[in-house]
Formats: sequence, C-alpha cells, structure tokens
Amino acid sequence: MRMAELSAESGVPVATIKYYLREGLLPPGERTSPNQARYGKEHIQRLKLVRALLDVGGLSVAKVRDVLDGIDQHDDLHQVLGVTQHGLALRQIQVDESNTESAMARLEQVAAERGWTLKADNPVVEATVNTLGAFIELGRTELVDRLSEYAKLADQMAELDLDTVYALDDPQTIVEAAVVGTVLGDTLFAALRRLAQERASAARFRS
Amino acid sequence: MRMAELSAESGVPVATIKYYLREGLLPPGERTSPNQARYGKEHIQRLKLVRALLDVGGLSVAKVRDVLDGIDQHDDLHQVLGVTQHGLALRQIQVDESNTESAMARLEQVAAERGWTLKADNPVVEATVNTLGAFIELGRTELVDRLSEYAKLADQMAELDLDTVYALDDPQTIVEAAVVGTVLGDTLFAALRRLAQERASAARFRS
Repeated sequence: MRMAELSAESGVPVATIKYYLREGLLPPGERTSPNQARYGKEHIQRLKLVRALLDVGGLSVAKVRDVLDGIDQHDDLHQVLGVTQHGLALRQIQVDESNTESAMARLEQVAAERGWTLKADNPVVEATVNTLGAFIELGRTELVDRLSEYAKLADQMAELDLDTVYALDDPQTIVEAAVVGTVLGDTLFAALRRLAQERASAARFRS
Repeated sequence: MRMAELSAESGVPVATIKYYLREGLLPPGERTSPNQARYGKEHIQRLKLVRALLDVGGLSVAKVRDVLDGIDQHDDLHQVLGVTQHGLALRQIQVDESNTESAMARLEQVAAERGWTLKADNPVVEATVNTLGAFIELGRTELVDRLSEYAKLADQMAELDLDTVYALDDPQTIVEAAVVGTVLGDTLFAALRRLAQERASAARFRS
C-alpha cells in the first residue's frame, strides 16, 4: 500500500508517519519510484507498537528507537525488557533525604526476603525508593509496613507475566509481547485493582 | 508559624501556597493581623497531601478540592474513594470500536466470575476496556486470555489494600490513608512488579 493508505489503515497522520521514518522508528517502504514507496502489514503493526510505546508508555522517541533496535536485532529478551522498563516514565515526587534513606533500608530488607537484586544504577530501584519515601513523608507508613505482602504479590504477577510471554513461539514475538505487556500492563492492572477495590470497599463499608 | 516558615518547612513556594489558599485546597491560617496569619502542623500535612494528589495522582485542582471536601466533611469512605479513583488519570490510547466491543465482552465475563459490578458511567470501567482494547488492537491477546488470573490477583491486592487502611483508628485517617494509598499505590506496585520481573526474567532467559 502507499503512504496515504498506510495512514488511513493505521489512523496515524501522514506527517507523523514521515516523522517516524526520519527518526528511524519505522523502516523505509519498498521504493517503487523516486518519490513513492510501498508499505506492508508489518508497517501497520510497527506503527501501532510505536504509538503504544509513545502514548501509553510515555517513552521518549530515543527510548522507542532503542527498544525497536533491540527487537529488530534479536537482542537478548532480558536486555530488551530492561531497555523498555528503564525508559518507562514512573511518576516522581520530591522527598526528603532522610525519608529516602529509610525507604531504601526498607526496600533492601524486602528485596533480601524475595531474592531481588537492587543495582545502584537501576532507575526502577530509584522509582521504588522514591514512592516508598513519599509514603513515609506523608506519614502514611501502613503500606510500607506491609511491603513484604505487596512484594509477594508482585512476584506472583511477574511469574504470570513471564508465563504469558513464554508460551509464545518465536523470540521476536516474545520480545514484542513482553514490551507491549510491560507498557500496557501497568495501566491494565491499576484499572483492575480499582474495580476490585470498589467491590471490596462497598462490601466492607456499606454493609 | 508564618507563611514563610510554612513554605520552608513544606518545600512549597509561597506563591504556590497562596494559590492553594485562593483555590480552597488549603484552609486559611489563624489571622493574627490584617496582613498576617499563623499556620500549624496540619497545614504542612495538608500541603503534602495536595502535592501527592496533584503530582503523583495527576488529579486536576477541581478534583483535589472534591477529594479534600470529602475528607473534611467526613463523607462515607466508599464515596471519597470513588471521587479519588474517578479523578485519577489513567493513560488512554485510541482503539477501534470493534476491538472496544470485544474488550467489553471479555471484561463482562471476568467481572461476572469475580462478582464485580460494572457501572456504565464509571471511568475506571472505560479505562479498563480501553487498555484491553489496545492489547487486542496490537494483536497481543495472550494477556486478555489470562485476564481471569490477573483479576484474581487484583482481588487479593484489593483485600490487602482494604486490610491496610481498615486497621487504622479514626475515619478521617482511614480516608486520608486510602486516598494516599490509591494515588501512590499504583506507582509503587508498578515499580515492585518490574523488580520482580527483572529477577524472574533473568532466572528464565539467562540460565
């Protein structure tokens, strides 16, 4: 199909597609004349993935390029997932240093319980410590006290996440599913958690 | 303390504090002269809560006011939580209508399994359907197929969430803890899930 059809099929404006081509987020089409190229189904699929990474994941254009390069070069799944996870925007809040230190100490305890490795340069560790620190700063330490139980649920969910992608056949599909799952998965689970909370809350406080 | 000290203690600029006072996000201090007022510890606490709702929760100023009004008027916990949850920004992505319909049908099955009520005007239902629809649109239906298992984990977490706030003494504190837990809790769990995934992924794909 031509650029105009690719735009109509994918719902992505022509100007945006041209931008993605320039930025290397979309591979060039097959050239049919000096001014025209032909695009295939794989371009539609790639456009959807790019939109998900940018819009839902909040990744920068540079991070999206890193993730796509990893997928295309058949990198180690662990590595591609790492690039995706580290690029995902987690909200940050300003926290006092003393509360950050308490949060780090608590996370280290729980990580030891669960066999998690906390690398110093991992932005996910930083985001976890920041959020825990915010709970402490707001004087709401109940959840920090129960961190072990939440970490146990996180381990259960990670096993389910890995089972889900591991059931797939080829490495390329596994990487793509893992990336999509990581990007959309947080939003999905946050929404499910609220539906479950509404039921649990209605059951306890209105009876 | 005076406004300048309140600003120093809370880390919130004076101009921002004045804006919150005008918008009714912060109760007025005790007037000591026509141009001066005295603020207490409860103002620092409230400022932190406002920052959490705005920065971490992404709530609008109007929604923050609704949540605080609910807390101050000792509203029904279920109602205040509803206002908070409905105000929380969940990322949205553009999805075809047919995929939205498939997603809704799938969510209805799972909600029936778990005894969840899906009200038509609930933005959380809309967000869940939207995210499920995005998975379908990207051709990644593995996680949609396993939705029952994720919903079961959501129920376990909701019980843990409710246990955590229910252990507190007075209704005012319960509401505040529930609001903070809802706002910061998604970010915290998303971070824990990634730490758990990193361990699980390293264990499976690098061994």
